Amino acid sequence: MNAIGVDVGGTKIAAGVVTPGGEILAEVRYPSSGSREQLLSNIARAISEVREGIDGIGGVCLAVPGFVMSAENKVVFAPNLHTIEGVRLKDEIGERTDLDITVENDANAAAWGEFRFGAGSEVDHLVFLTLGTGIGGGVISHGVLLRGAQGAGGELGHVTIQAEGGPLCGCGNYGCLEALASGTSITRRARRAAEEHPKSALGRIAADRDVQGEDVTKLANEGDELAISVLEETGTWLGVGLAGFVNIFNPDVIAIGGGASKAGELILEPARREMRRRSQSPSRDLVTIKEATLGPKSGVLGAAALARDESGEYVLGS
Amino acid sequence: MNAIGVDVGGTKIAAGVVTPGGEILAEVRYPSSGSREQLLSNIARAISEVREGIDGIGGVCLAVPGFVMSAENKVVFAPNLHTIEGVRLKDEIGERTDLDITVENDANAAAWGEFRFGAGSEVDHLVFLTLGTGIGGGVISHGVLLRGAQGAGGELGHVTIQAEGGPLCGCGNYGCLEALASGTSITRRARRAAEEHPKSALGRIAADRDVQGEDVTKLANEGDELAISVLEETGTWLGVGLAGFVNIFNPDVIAIGGGASKAGELILEPARREMRRRSQSPSRDLVTIKEATLGPKSGVLGAAALARDESGEYVLGS
Repeated sequence: MNAIGVDVGGTKIAAGVVTPGGEILAEVRYPSSGSREQLLSNIARAISEVREGIDGIGGVCLAVPGFVMSAENKVVFAPNLHTIEGVRLKDEIGERTDLDITVENDANAAAWGEFRFGAGSEVDHLVFLTLGTGIGGGVISHGVLLRGAQGAGGELGHVTIQAEGGPLCGCGNYGCLEALASGTSITRRARRAAEEHPKSALGRIAADRDVQGEDVTKLANEGDELAISVLEETGTWLGVGLAGFVNIFNPDVIAIGGGASKAGELILEPARREMRRRSQSPSRDLVTIKEATLGPKSGVLGAAALARDESGEYVLGS
Repeated sequence: MNAIGVDVGGTKIAAGVVTPGGEILAEVRYPSSGSREQLLSNIARAISEVREGIDGIGGVCLAVPGFVMSAENKVVFAPNLHTIEGVRLKDEIGERTDLDITVENDANAAAWGEFRFGAGSEVDHLVFLTLGTGIGGGVISHGVLLRGAQGAGGELGHVTIQAEGGPLCGCGNYGCLEALASGTSITRRARRAAEEHPKSALGRIAADRDVQGEDVTKLANEGDELAISVLEETGTWLGVGLAGFVNIFNPDVIAIGGGASKAGELILEPARREMRRRSQSPSRDLVTIKEATLGPKSGVLGAAALARDESGEYVLGS
């Protein structure tokens, strides 16, 4: 049975009809900006449009950038999309579409996508991290998505790895993994390196405009040593966090997605090395650390799979 | 149906027959020292003796201080009981007792005990930590014991919380939670405090003999400020780790057991304070951090419950 996954992001809404095998049959996009009413209306419109002409939809799930309080089915604390804070999306979108809706945190949905169709499709134990502006996470252990008591679990970016002397994180804490290994931390390191080495390639870019994360990856791929060292330092901090996850979860696979993961082995190789230094056998010997494979489609694919996997025998009227 | 739990520790073997409600009907103890053959023979003897005169045993589980490789059912890396390393306990004890045996890591078994009969018996999401010489851990999420891909999961003591400048841990890593918040870390801090303040109560003890963890708890309970500050520093570091677990697992309860937990609120209160500083809503608002309730019985009770809970309809011939 096909299902609909809707990825509600900070700038756009992507809705897709997904087959049980993970093929996207149809997809539509709307902006997520504007008022709350515009957002809700655009989500409902995206769902209605994408299912046009497709019979038999076995569930709809919305992936949202915030905590989903399971008990009240309400979205709370969505720093990148304040308009959905406090909204009971299940009810609001259910009424507008006459469909039964489920709602899930976006990183958890993306993790489920990688688990069902991507980097974790062969295993039962997957840790998924997305390195972007922040660090999002999701964990599948024994085939179970770890949502926690209120649906707020899987916040892997906000474990403290440098309690004393660590940098301030967006969450208000000091020394979070996110503050030390996100895409933002790459930019921060690169700009500092450019200041310290004005004659370097990074320094020459900085003379013209702000250095971006993409500049670092590009230069590092060309063999620029300063850019490589920025990614190596970031990867090493990432590895400190991964070591903890390896000891906690004894996972088969850790999949790394998000924009900063485009640096690939330039980050993953130092991350693996540091992970091995700081974690234990047999867990560290088993785990495979690799790039996630679904890219930006993970949200739509994961949400659709969750809608189907958790709906049991439920079939929407077509 | 009653079940048998066997807690195989570094110095003794405790075997108990446990009712479904968590009552211990009979218990026997043997030393765990000596040769491998003596150990295996004592485990088998403990099981045979404890079940004498009790009809209908629905499973036997051994809780052991090491990693249990699920695939091979073999114990590996048991630093406090080297004689069981490499032993296929299921087969060895199964042959000697003619019973079907399961084997589990001791901290995981204790966590399951607290989940079924103790501090976590009312909830679905429990994080259990035992503060002793080291820090052991076990996690139940959505009612599932998180063993990981090879049965080596739940090593909560070995997450890095102070990557740069943290103290050396017994595992070889620097800045592990265990190195900063175990019972051993209390003794280390107390001895340093005694050296720095020779006229303090701790200093006067140190003039005679080595300061022990119990001295710190006793003095702190009497209001001694230096002893209180040692426990407060330990509790604060514990809180750094707990904050990470709160963000990762969104648990209902974190239960703290082990010898060092006897300091009670003198450690738990600063731990809660630091946890709240470093973790997010709604997870930090929900979680209850409290003392474990089963004490040293958690291993026997948890192992027996695991034997029963995981045996399905299996009933041993009596």
